[in-house]
Amino acid sequence: MVIEVSSSPKPVYLDHVELTGGLWQERQATNRSRTIPAIHHQLETTGRLDAWRMDPNRERPKHRSVIYMFWDSDTGKWLEAVAYSLHTHPDPELEKQADGIISLIEKAQKPDGYLNTWFGNLEPENRWRNLRDWHEMYNAGHLIEGAVAYYKATGKRTILDVLSRFADHIDSRFGPGDGQKRGYPGHPELELALVKLYRETGDARYLNLSKYFIDERGQEPNYFDIESRERGEDPADFWAQTYRYCQAHKPIREQTEATGHAVRACYLYAGIADVALETQDQELVEVSRRLWDDLTSHQMYITGGLGPAHSNEGFTFAYDLPNETAYAETCAAISLAFCAHRMFHLDPNGRYIDVMERALYNNVLSGASYEGDHFFYANPLTSYPNVNPYEHWSGITSDRHYRRQAWYFCPCCPPNWARIVASIGGYFYSTTADRLYVHLYNRNQADFAFGGKAVRLEQQTDYPWDGTVQFSVGAETPVEFELALRIPGWCRSFTLEVNGVPQPITPVNGYAVIARRWENGDRVKLVLDMPVERVAPHPEIREDAGHIALQRGPVVYCLEEVDNGPRLANIAIPSESQLQASFDADLFGGVSIITGDAVRAEPSSWPGELYQPLSVVQYSRSPFRFKAIPYYLWANREPGEMRVWIREW
Amino acid sequence: MVIEVSSSPKPVYLDHVELTGGLWQERQATNRSRTIPAIHHQLETTGRLDAWRMDPNRERPKHRSVIYMFWDSDTGKWLEAVAYSLHTHPDPELEKQADGIISLIEKAQKPDGYLNTWFGNLEPENRWRNLRDWHEMYNAGHLIEGAVAYYKATGKRTILDVLSRFADHIDSRFGPGDGQKRGYPGHPELELALVKLYRETGDARYLNLSKYFIDERGQEPNYFDIESRERGEDPADFWAQTYRYCQAHKPIREQTEATGHAVRACYLYAGIADVALETQDQELVEVSRRLWDDLTSHQMYITGGLGPAHSNEGFTFAYDLPNETAYAETCAAISLAFCAHRMFHLDPNGRYIDVMERALYNNVLSGASYEGDHFFYANPLTSYPNVNPYEHWSGITSDRHYRRQAWYFCPCCPPNWARIVASIGGYFYSTTADRLYVHLYNRNQADFAFGGKAVRLEQQTDYPWDGTVQFSVGAETPVEFELALRIPGWCRSFTLEVNGVPQPITPVNGYAVIARRWENGDRVKLVLDMPVERVAPHPEIREDAGHIALQRGPVVYCLEEVDNGPRLANIAIPSESQLQASFDADLFGGVSIITGDAVRAEPSSWPGELYQPLSVVQYSRSPFRFKAIPYYLWANREPGEMRVWIREW
Repeated sequence: MVIEVSSSPKPVYLDHVELTGGLWQERQATNRSRTIPAIHHQLETTGRLDAWRMDPNRERPKHRSVIYMFWDSDTGKWLEAVAYSLHTHPDPELEKQADGIISLIEKAQKPDGYLNTWFGNLEPENRWRNLRDWHEMYNAGHLIEGAVAYYKATGKRTILDVLSRFADHIDSRFGPGDGQKRGYPGHPELELALVKLYRETGDARYLNLSKYFIDERGQEPNYFDIESRERGEDPADFWAQTYRYCQAHKPIREQTEATGHAVRACYLYAGIADVALETQDQELVEVSRRLWDDLTSHQMYITGGLGPAHSNEGFTFAYDLPNETAYAETCAAISLAFCAHRMFHLDPNGRYIDVMERALYNNVLSGASYEGDHFFYANPLTSYPNVNPYEHWSGITSDRHYRRQAWYFCPCCPPNWARIVASIGGYFYSTTADRLYVHLYNRNQADFAFGGKAVRLEQQTDYPWDGTVQFSVGAETPVEFELALRIPGWCRSFTLEVNGVPQPITPVNGYAVIARRWENGDRVKLVLDMPVERVAPHPEIREDAGHIALQRGPVVYCLEEVDNGPRLANIAIPSESQLQASFDADLFGGVSIITGDAVRAEPSSWPGELYQPLSVVQYSRSPFRFKAIPYYLWANREPGEMRVWIREW
Repeated sequence: MVIEVSSSPKPVYLDHVELTGGLWQERQATNRSRTIPAIHHQLETTGRLDAWRMDPNRERPKHRSVIYMFWDSDTGKWLEAVAYSLHTHPDPELEKQADGIISLIEKAQKPDGYLNTWFGNLEPENRWRNLRDWHEMYNAGHLIEGAVAYYKATGKRTILDVLSRFADHIDSRFGPGDGQKRGYPGHPELELALVKLYRETGDARYLNLSKYFIDERGQEPNYFDIESRERGEDPADFWAQTYRYCQAHKPIREQTEATGHAVRACYLYAGIADVALETQDQELVEVSRRLWDDLTSHQMYITGGLGPAHSNEGFTFAYDLPNETAYAETCAAISLAFCAHRMFHLDPNGRYIDVMERALYNNVLSGASYEGDHFFYANPLTSYPNVNPYEHWSGITSDRHYRRQAWYFCPCCPPNWARIVASIGGYFYSTTADRLYVHLYNRNQADFAFGGKAVRLEQQTDYPWDGTVQFSVGAETPVEFELALRIPGWCRSFTLEVNGVPQPITPVNGYAVIARRWENGDRVKLVLDMPVERVAPHPEIREDAGHIALQRGPVVYCLEEVDNGPRLANIAIPSESQLQASFDADLFGGVSIITGDAVRAEPSSWPGELYQPLSVVQYSRSPFRFKAIPYYLWANREPGEMRVWIREW
């Protein structure tokens, strides 16, 4: 199928969408009050802001670490989160703080446009010498994203100009021309940032450079081999052993599998989708879809988590989805949401948004504590004392439980969480000339225009705790457009009314489309049936065989020890057990929980050694009421075991 | 309970026991014809024998690696295996080959008695400077064990004298005296070897040195800290982070848990048991039993495997027994057998031999291929394409299956397998002045003496495939002694006859004891009921919850893909299924297999995405006949999945 790229929908920017309540409004408020300040505090206390100040007396640690080499990205992501927040919730104090940091960044820029706190000052001789590992381009990408968002939020050009100069510098150094290096980012991210910069500035050089990076990637002779040899290193000594790690093992257009480091992969795929859309390159569209299909059909957790392995922070092989050791980095789920959002705009189909929603309500939200100031890097689907996804080691003694941390040595996840939560409104709607796509449901009001006529749409709902969504239309004059309401993949029956009149509509590509001349006060009522579902895993996922997960709406549930006692592996849910959803107003500000009859299949006593003939063990199958809470809220109470996949009886 | 160490039974050395058929005779024949020559070939081709030759033109690789630092142990273990083999099966060619190598070892010894191919020549300045990591004492131990065995087998003193001189050298350097270092082996092994040397030579200095090593271990200030600082290193930089790794985190007499590297642990515990026995140190007896109980009650696989983790090749925490990533090193199961054998002689109880038998018939035997020339290092209990216990990495491409290898960079396991198989006869019997303990069953004839009168005992049996064991007694004159037949822990009913007369005997401490004045031609018939058992895991072993294992007699079974198709995780054995053992004469020279009805619980089709509502998935529970083979024989046919723990329905 050839995609009509030219008529593809455009996302509605977050400034058009005001959250007026519900889960996302609450998470955004926490983000503003706790998360963004907590991250600023960490940027300051860990020396990341001093790095911009370049005070020779306040230099960053002297020993070399690639971690220090991507400090700039933390500032970039924080700035981006601040920008989104300012755009919807002006805050002069916060803006002043951001302006101060921007001023530091501006001063740190070199006359030739180069901008990097490590290589700009401590190792100028090593600029652009190791694209594979040293993250200069990754930092550039995050700073560009921050700059574009800040400019859009405030109209202040300083940071946009600074980063445009840096992009110009990169454009002059890299490319197919004489004297240029044929390199590309070791950690993709700049690709999608350059497309944002192109869209904001209209300067096609940025789009072309992004396309160059994508097309040059993985070509032979491999650039990472070349630059390794130029440093006097043997390319075979690359620690990760394979360029699959950074998706540079073969040209992009020949790639068929999601490989390597999961965040690199999804940032890259997002960039590919952006370039495909902007250049209307049908082959790249196909590449995007092929990689997406592999990613989501073979390598994704039910929580929207990606990357089972700690060793490469990424993918291993199809259906390899261990739960206890799942890495499932918060950034990877966020990058999956980025990717999904872009895929929709290439190929307007609700299946992409289904995955985006799965990631958002589960692995993304679990990335921060309910209080907003502690963060998960890895998001396992089972947690057991003494086990954590980073290592499996006899020396674990300090804390038996895997818990969220206030910060990480490599803290990519906290500011990533802050920026996606601050910008969540931007994921709600897309438009074409005559259609309004509604992707996500949450109380909000949003403004659009069709044919030059303004429309306001208001959503009233308790989604995701309830499947009823009521829309009201505000329009000074009647407006003709198609309202395309997403019928989520998890939803197996729904009803739709306009002004009380049932609409027997069959969804097309995941959307129920109501074409109408809308008048002020029109009301639409969408009722998505939202029963508790037992979810079965694909039969190739060996880790989940014999188990089910509980899901209601987009929310995946888990058992925690605090509610269900220890040894969660011994709990089974009989197939005939009635499962009940109820709203617990006292739990985390009000969430739906799931309860039901379960059995704890355990011996009443154990006769001695570790292994016993089954016939001598007296198993009692004690019935009890289990209580499951949303996965994303685990590890916010008393520490203990956690489990998503539960034995079926 | 105070152990009467002085009256404890003594093992009957292997030269008294002639295997006359059955499984162990077949494995020994393969060991002689294939394994011992294969290992010699590797010693030669990898440079290990050249290392003894110390030809400056044929030096070992120049770059430093701790692996090269324990090359000597490989020669030591090969020599020990050869010695046992020569003792029961003289072979002039093999003896000549061994004598040649002994001559190289002799020439490599320094005038002061020091003996080590790496530090003796390449780094003489670093002798004894890093006991923690550099394996000089470990090498010494294995060479001593080889020397003692060779002397016993051949009566030739050369190698025993060489190693006695080396032991004297060590004794002069280490101890509590002035000018001595207060060190002890980083990798325990020398402790048990010194007790062997003491027993062979009668020189109490060797026993005292072993006791010193044990008592000094883990004392403060920690010797490994001291020697680190002497090398100019910060002890905190120890790669393993904790001295739990080498069981030196606290004094031995204060230790209560099996910790760290599993092989180090069990070699150490075996040495402790030896010293406890020889010194009649009741406290050390208690320490041995405490550590044994922790080891076998909390940290042992059903196969007798030890050590779930690759990261430390060892223990993590109680009940942490993952199957797919189980390290369960072959050497660890062998060291468990060593330990068990010694524990019995400290505390004559069949429960230790039960564990020894579990290890021998499962994790030990699985260490080598049926053909005897390929070896497992790690012995997982589940195997799945692309997964191996060493790593979990996206780069796996060369061989999708975990298989035995002809050799390893660190090849401790192959010669360890060779020496335990060659010496298996030495694990069959123990005696006191008036009792003959029979531990293991396999066709053999063995010679003993009680009160100066010779007795020959002959076993006729197809154990482990059949539970019937017939004994006949040969004695020129009647002999009074107690025949103590082990009633294995796995056996829940048995019958015993003497000359056709039933003997209603209740076993005491795991042995059925027949006190009698035995006459020539007396016949004993022991019938151990050997049904197929479904085995239940301890309820704290989360990985095995809802699963059973199949065991018959001492043999643990597994499913392989070649017999049962792929996706073994989806196979369940209904609780009402009749399980049948049958003898398959064509499989690996004849072994018992288990068959029965199972179901393959899989959807007949899968509607699309990875996760589906259970209600829309049509599960078919297709019945089929499963076939299970002995675990130790897995990975000898077509590569594919393997599984020990099977879902119960």
